[in-house]
Amino acid sequence: MASENEVYVGKKGVMNYVLAVVTQFNQGAKEVHIKARGRAISKAVDVAEVVRNRFLPEVKVKNIEISTEELESERGVSKVSAIDIVLAKE
Amino acid sequence: MASENEVYVGKKGVMNYVLAVVTQFNQGAKEVHIKARGRAISKAVDVAEVVRNRFLPEVKVKNIEISTEELESERGVSKVSAIDIVLAKE
Repeated sequence: MASENEVYVGKKGVMNYVLAVVTQFNQGAKEVHIKARGRAISKAVDVAEVVRNRFLPEVKVKNIEISTEELESERGVSKVSAIDIVLAKE
Repeated sequence: MASENEVYVGKKGVMNYVLAVVTQFNQGAKEVHIKARGRAISKAVDVAEVVRNRFLPEVKVKNIEISTEELESERGVSKVSAIDIVLAKE
């Protein structure tokens, strides 16, 4: 699902996503997007902070964008907030 | 508690904080910081998105910063992620 430089944060524990981000950097990625929607947004920020503070201090927050996405379901269209945190190796 | 240009997002409903932000802009603020910690981070993004999409389309996201704060309690020091979303009138 996720492309090489993206990690989608969902319902698993924080460390699952931290490991995914660290792995991508260790495999040579220059930047990694951490993406999340709705309540997982808080967890995405945790992931970015744990990566920087505990594993890869040379990685910086390059950009953060927030947006609104429309989700279609059987009950109609609902709107949900989303975040895209870009971590980059300097 | 909060200074004139800051809104701290906590346990109330999203619209409470949306109203607080809109009020500050209507009273002449050029920019407003929306701040939150922990699980309230997702709600802070909701607040920023609702302000921009439904009430003040001329307001832009000027900057977003994430950080880690240390909280002292009876059970010791724990770390919590924090966000600071700066909305600004162009």
